[in-house]
This record gives sequence, structure tokens and C-alpha cells, in this order.
Amino acid sequence: MRPKAMTMGDPAGIGPEICLKALIADDSYRESTLIIGSESIVSNYSDLINNTIPLAFISEPEAFEKGKINVISLPLGNCEIGKVSAAGGDAAYRYVETAIAYAMEGRVGAVITGPLNKEALHMGGHPYDGHTEIFAELTHTKKVTMMLWSEKLSVVHVSTHVSLRQACDLVKKERILDCITLADETLKRMGIAEPKIAVAGLNPHSGESGLFGEEDRTEIRPAVEEAVKLDFNAVGPLPPDTVYLQASKGKYDCVVAMYHDQGHIPMKLLAFDSGVNVTLGLPIIRTSVDHGTAFDIAGKGLASEESMLAALEVSKRLT
Amino acid sequence: MRPKAMTMGDPAGIGPEICLKALIADDSYRESTLIIGSESIVSNYSDLINNTIPLAFISEPEAFEKGKINVISLPLGNCEIGKVSAAGGDAAYRYVETAIAYAMEGRVGAVITGPLNKEALHMGGHPYDGHTEIFAELTHTKKVTMMLWSEKLSVVHVSTHVSLRQACDLVKKERILDCITLADETLKRMGIAEPKIAVAGLNPHSGESGLFGEEDRTEIRPAVEEAVKLDFNAVGPLPPDTVYLQASKGKYDCVVAMYHDQGHIPMKLLAFDSGVNVTLGLPIIRTSVDHGTAFDIAGKGLASEESMLAALEVSKRLT
Repeated sequence: MRPKAMTMGDPAGIGPEICLKALIADDSYRESTLIIGSESIVSNYSDLINNTIPLAFISEPEAFEKGKINVISLPLGNCEIGKVSAAGGDAAYRYVETAIAYAMEGRVGAVITGPLNKEALHMGGHPYDGHTEIFAELTHTKKVTMMLWSEKLSVVHVSTHVSLRQACDLVKKERILDCITLADETLKRMGIAEPKIAVAGLNPHSGESGLFGEEDRTEIRPAVEEAVKLDFNAVGPLPPDTVYLQASKGKYDCVVAMYHDQGHIPMKLLAFDSGVNVTLGLPIIRTSVDHGTAFDIAGKGLASEESMLAALEVSKRLT
Repeated sequence: MRPKAMTMGDPAGIGPEICLKALIADDSYRESTLIIGSESIVSNYSDLINNTIPLAFISEPEAFEKGKINVISLPLGNCEIGKVSAAGGDAAYRYVETAIAYAMEGRVGAVITGPLNKEALHMGGHPYDGHTEIFAELTHTKKVTMMLWSEKLSVVHVSTHVSLRQACDLVKKERILDCITLADETLKRMGIAEPKIAVAGLNPHSGESGLFGEEDRTEIRPAVEEAVKLDFNAVGPLPPDTVYLQASKGKYDCVVAMYHDQGHIPMKLLAFDSGVNVTLGLPIIRTSVDHGTAFDIAGKGLASEESMLAALEVSKRLT
């Protein structure tokens, strides 16, 4: 079986530590996942957390050694733990670039990513907003969307890293329909036979019949109507301030959020430590932790691998 | 001591039931609060829920009778339980109008409102968006803001019932400063000596240094800087997707939300049944339940008075 690739994230952050801890904690993930990172950092963290499982530094996925923690090592410049640096940002990008190349060649079965630091990424010469944009570009994919997944709530975003004004402009029938389609497809792959998809409104009370904005009836409602015609189990637009609560109680399997914070606020409240970020629409599987590099606690052995284990679990359900 | 006035809300909804249940449940509230509603409805609900405390139908607040449930009765037209009607909407408006008049004359110490139905309100000839707008107009107040309060989280809104695009336009330094000032004043009246006020950003990640929108640095940051100069304990703009979680963990006493759903989504998740709506900036005290008329369960004895008890508690803390 092809292994999966787990990228270490920014080497100065908590990424290396949680990658190791996750593979130490669970042997089925360990036997099916290799780390793409840098040898010096991995070795240091292995000592720091008193790891006794042997490390295998391998040169390609096909060299995977059972019973060990497998690492493909890439070069790393001058990088201090807990500090933003060009070297860290560049290396973090190279890990992801390598993982995507392996995945596109079919040599790894999925990519699970550790956290990036955007400032470091930019300093390192890679002006992306984040992983999602890197994956879209390197896999030549136009229609992608960010799903945040947890046991309690799952959300797919019509837009993410744009201003709120621009997010309003991006609330378009076709895009909403794409998000419903991608959500449905993904949830089915995860084992839900008939996913129930709620589509949130954009404006307060879903616009209250046009009193507070037009998009709910000119874009969102037609998208949902079209989706229903296409046999999706979709409903909406539903008032944004209650739809997430209803979904978290089990009424819906997923909510299509109209903008970044509409989806992120409820996810962070309900699943701060256990959320998984999944990029939908790619030709490859990509899941990720839903937290940052946490430079303030890097190198101290304090980081929790919970979100990384959840990301591994979702990648397993998707394959 | 002056009694407080509790308005029954739309007579066809759950308002009458929860007003009665709240005053039955707590004798200190009963001894200090009168209901403004309609005799026939109050009597019917009193029978329905097997109330044994005597009702006193009085003509003015000064006639308050200890040991009873006091009701000032206003006329009510043809109104069926569980149905939207012009008669219900008009009566609901008259209850509020009367309560405000008593409060402005100093004859009641606060107004606590039961839920309105907007459609009924409009059918009854009163084209308001809701209570807040009625209170602002009838008390001739320009600067009001909606606070949602619960034990876990408290939020003040820069805007509420406008489209999301218009909400972006309303994110202005002066308005934000007003919201900080009103929040600080209210929390101090509620017994918090030095309220810690978090100001949320408008855009994702608070705009990420202007990458995703300008308002966070052109309007919000200057407002917070000005507030700090004026000795408010304010901080921001903070990323919208984590500030509510931090506040709910006790880091802040209140969050200034930039638009309706930014504040309402976390409140509904954290305190669906126990939230209180407080209008800040009025010359009188006004608190309210944070839920609707729930026509579907009206007349069945199933409604919970929890939010009404919380609204009574907050009005007590504010007086």
C-alpha cells in the first residue's frame, strides 16, 4: 500500500513535534505515513520527547520501512526554533511542494500538512496566502474550497481569505452550487450515504425577504433550488445565527458558509483543538491541522497532537 | 419601590406564558414586576398552567398589589394563538408603547420585553424592525446598540438589522468608540469594576495588515487607540474567529462585534436558551428575552421561562 505523506510545516513551529507525537501515538498511522521534513529537526524533537521508536531517513516513498518512523529529509537553512525566518518558510514550502509532487505521481496516497507561518512563507519567497492556494496552483485546480471538519460540525466555505466586502461579491449561484457538490461528494466518500447539506444565508436573518440585502434570494436560493433539482439533499438559505447550532445538534451533516468567519467562528468555538482542514476539489487528498505554528510553545514538548491525529483520521476516511 | 414593567409580547406567541411562568417561579421578581398585556390572554394562560397565585388587574403602576401577579390590561382585537395577526401585532406594540411611556415618566423602573413577531407588527401598522428601533424612536435616542448578554459571553453590536454590505459601511471609528463607551458603562453598572473589552476585527484575521480589507486598520484600530487614551480597558482589532472563544473563557468581559451575525453566531451557540437582549444608550433600562414568538409551541404550556428570568436578572443588576 502506498504510504501517505505528512509535511512537517514550519520547522520553527510546533509542526515537527506534533508529526512525531501523532506517529508515536498511533501505530496504524505510523505504518502508513511518512514525514517530509528535515533530519536535524526531527532528530532533535525525537530526543526532546524521549522517542524510542527508530527513525528511518529514506530517500523516496517506495523505500518505506515498516516498524519505524519514516522521514524524507530536505535541506534546511539557518532556522531558530520559535522564530519567523526565511529559511523556515522556504523549507516549509519545499516539504509541501515535494509532497504534492509525490501525490500527483501517485507515489503517496494523501497529503497531511503541519502548520505554516505565512510571514515566514513570504520571507522565504513564496507569496501564498496559505496551503490551500499552494495546493490549488501546484495541482492546477481552479475550483477548490476549504472544509473545516470535526465530529461536531463540518463547514464548507464559499470564500476564505478575502475582505468581507469581496466575500459579499463572491456569493454567486454557481460557486454555491460548486460548494454543495464538493461537500456532498466528500461526505459520501467519508461514509455518509445521503449527506444533509444546509446552506447558510449571507445577511442577517437570511436577508428577511430582501429587507437586509438581496444575495440571499438572488444567488443563494436559486443555487439551493438548482441543487435540489440535481438531487442533492440541500436546504437554505437558513438564518446564519442558528444554522450552525442546528448542524452541531445533528440536523445537518455540513453547512455551506458564505464567508471565512461565518464558518470559522462556530468551528473554533465547537472544536478548537480537534478541527481538521480539508481542501475539496483537488485531484489528490489533502487534510491538515486547523491551527497555527504556535511559535510561543515550540520546542518545549507542550504541543498537542490531537488535531494532527484528527487530520490523519479524516485522510483515512477519504481514501 | 417602583415596579418594573414586563411586556407580554405578541399575544399569539409564547410571551404571555413565559411572563406568567417567570413571575410564578420567582417571588422577588413577582413582588417587583407588573405585566403589561391583555386580561383575556393572561387569564387563559393562568388556567392552562394551573397557576394558583391570584391575578390583580390594575389600572396604573401605583396600584401595584403585593402578593399577587399584577397586570395592566390593554385592549386586544381578534387574535388566534399561534397565528400571525394584525390585532396581535398592534396589541404587542401598544404594550411596549405603554411601558416606555411609564418608564419615561419614572413610574416604572425598567422595561423587560417579551418576544414580538415582526410580520404581525407590520400588519398591525407599526413598520419597525424590532424592539430596539421602537425604543430608540419613542425615547428620542440616537445612539443605541444591542448587547446580547449571558453568563458565558457578552456582545455589543456595531450594527444589527442591515445587509452585510451596509454593515461594512457602518464600521466607523466614532460608532465603534460609542459601542466601547456604552459597553463599559453598562458592565460597570452590572458590577464589573474594570470591564475588559475586546474589539473584534471586521475582515478575516482582522484584515491581515490590509491584505484582506482596510477597515481593521483605518477604523477599528484608531477607535481602540482612542478608547485606550480615554482610559478604557479595550484591545483590538482581534481576529473574529478566536476572540469569542477567548471571551467565553473569561479573558474579556465583552466583545464589540462588527455586525449582526458575528455576534449572534457565538451567542446562539453558547447561550441559546439563556441569552438576554439589552438595549444600551437609552434613558431607560430595557432588557429582553433573546428568542422569538415560537408560534409553533404557543398555547401548549411547553415554553421555557429561562431567558425571561435571565432578562429579569439583568434588569435587576442594572437598577
